Amino acid sequence: MKIAVDAMGGDNAPSAPVNGALQAIEKIADLEIILVGDHDRIMPLIQDSPRHTRLHIHHAPDVIGMGEAPVQAVRRKPDSSMVQAMKLVKTGKAAAVISAGNTGALMTAGLFILGRMTGIERPALSALLPVMNGWGLLLLDVGANLDPKPSQLVQYGIMGAYYCQEVYGIENPRVGLLNVGEEPRKGTPLIRETYERLQKSGLNFVGNIESRELMQGRADIVVSDGFSGNIALKLTEGLARDLMGEFKKLLMKNFKTKMAAYLLKDGLMDLKRRMDYQEYGGAPLLGLDQIVYKVHGASQEKAFYSAIQVAYNYCQKNTQTRLRERVREEEAHQ
Amino acid sequence: MKIAVDAMGGDNAPSAPVNGALQAIEKIADLEIILVGDHDRIMPLIQDSPRHTRLHIHHAPDVIGMGEAPVQAVRRKPDSSMVQAMKLVKTGKAAAVISAGNTGALMTAGLFILGRMTGIERPALSALLPVMNGWGLLLLDVGANLDPKPSQLVQYGIMGAYYCQEVYGIENPRVGLLNVGEEPRKGTPLIRETYERLQKSGLNFVGNIESRELMQGRADIVVSDGFSGNIALKLTEGLARDLMGEFKKLLMKNFKTKMAAYLLKDGLMDLKRRMDYQEYGGAPLLGLDQIVYKVHGASQEKAFYSAIQVAYNYCQKNTQTRLRERVREEEAHQ
Repeated sequence: MKIAVDAMGGDNAPSAPVNGALQAIEKIADLEIILVGDHDRIMPLIQDSPRHTRLHIHHAPDVIGMGEAPVQAVRRKPDSSMVQAMKLVKTGKAAAVISAGNTGALMTAGLFILGRMTGIERPALSALLPVMNGWGLLLLDVGANLDPKPSQLVQYGIMGAYYCQEVYGIENPRVGLLNVGEEPRKGTPLIRETYERLQKSGLNFVGNIESRELMQGRADIVVSDGFSGNIALKLTEGLARDLMGEFKKLLMKNFKTKMAAYLLKDGLMDLKRRMDYQEYGGAPLLGLDQIVYKVHGASQEKAFYSAIQVAYNYCQKNTQTRLRERVREEEAHQ
Repeated sequence: MKIAVDAMGGDNAPSAPVNGALQAIEKIADLEIILVGDHDRIMPLIQDSPRHTRLHIHHAPDVIGMGEAPVQAVRRKPDSSMVQAMKLVKTGKAAAVISAGNTGALMTAGLFILGRMTGIERPALSALLPVMNGWGLLLLDVGANLDPKPSQLVQYGIMGAYYCQEVYGIENPRVGLLNVGEEPRKGTPLIRETYERLQKSGLNFVGNIESRELMQGRADIVVSDGFSGNIALKLTEGLARDLMGEFKKLLMKNFKTKMAAYLLKDGLMDLKRRMDYQEYGGAPLLGLDQIVYKVHGASQEKAFYSAIQVAYNYCQKNTQTRLRERVREEEAHQ
């Protein structure tokens, strides 16, 4: 199986995506990776690898920057690594794309080149969040669709539940709705109508989830409009980073606190790992016709490696085909 | 000056509000407090206080519960502590109300009994958040107005800026807009139009603030729609609580970690204090014609004490009258 990796996407490109790819090749025997990007910058990073026969380079001279306006960037840069990687999937040369590049551009390129899955009105960007007890939490949408309709949010629930079941092996995953209160009639008209539809949907709907309880593991999937979902995702990242930073400062203050840091080392490492999005791999753009994984822009190679692994399993089990069927059934049922 | 304290509001009533009131009376020589609530439950708590000549009880036999539907509760419980406290302000018997009760009911009672400030379309609920560097951050709206108009969000900016200037002594306070990206054209149509209006408003508008940067102290006031603002506020509270809880568990694990906890004691206390909303006192319901402070439902006496102190200073300086003037000027200017 071949997976296309956008070697120029993210803050640490090309070394982080390329090294992540090398790690994945090392671990998975029948995996081939197409590194998409500037040949001259990728080549020096892989030439010493003993496994480079299963690594290919697809030259793409252009890069879409993190701050570029998505639609223009995708239109004006057909030779960018992101667009070229997407085209490899479209033409059947790769089974999935992995990119840490500009998120808006990735969704746009996905829509333009791969298209929507039949029956899905708007694809969603998902994110995996750490929780205090349990495997994690799939939050979607986190920014692809800022002004969704209730029907679209229900589709996010369906896709998210199916994804968690197939990829994380969770039976009958619990679907919650991000809201400003736990009671059924809370929220905006959009959220109230979504609540009613989710209740009738046949999903294992566990009701409203307040953001205060997000990390408590009361749901496996939390559905949200893209605006609030994005606020929640970035706040979680930012606050975890800031609080961990404050602790670090505290631990490095003087001899006494450094001794404490030494005594706490194992536990701190464990907590840091649990809060680290890089452990969680990428998150899929759900609702595109084919498979696109978004890796966090600030990722190091570990996150690329995890994402490649998750995408590999997803392709291996042919999950996308069954997701398409599941969505079609749901559509017939409505 | 007399301040009305809802003695029955919040998870720790009546002891927390009553003890907070006792503390405030102790510190502020010309303060009188009217404790509003069940006479028989309040009396035993204050009878031993040497200063109880400046403490009054206004008997209100009924209580609005935390889970009650706001409009019905306010209508059906005219003898509740919250409604009675509000009426003391309406009739000039108290200068401000302080309550940790049901937030929705507090806003509803404020609107029904005190009314809106002339020129303000919809009042906002504000919240004080801790930041990593700096005095703090006033976030508004955090849930009073889930579906606001751009003009209303601009009014929140005006009121918030004035409040920070008067109460916290911040010159030319920086106003930011909670959004999903830093660039000017990001967000929903509501947020994009608000951005443009804030830019033309004469406020010290510093642009979009992503939730990832919320705690970085780049703005003194952050304006948001009530839905996202509520998500952001509760996520901050929840994540801070959960992360601090994880650290605590880590520190209590075994002999080694307990020793580390001992070495870190001072620094941890300091960090805990900085993250503690109780240090920040209450936050005002901005845009009501008179002064209402909301204290967090889970507060202990310290939070009531801080809120009473802040409300006292606000009344003392006659800030509400000047805020009314400021809003009128702004209205004339538009």
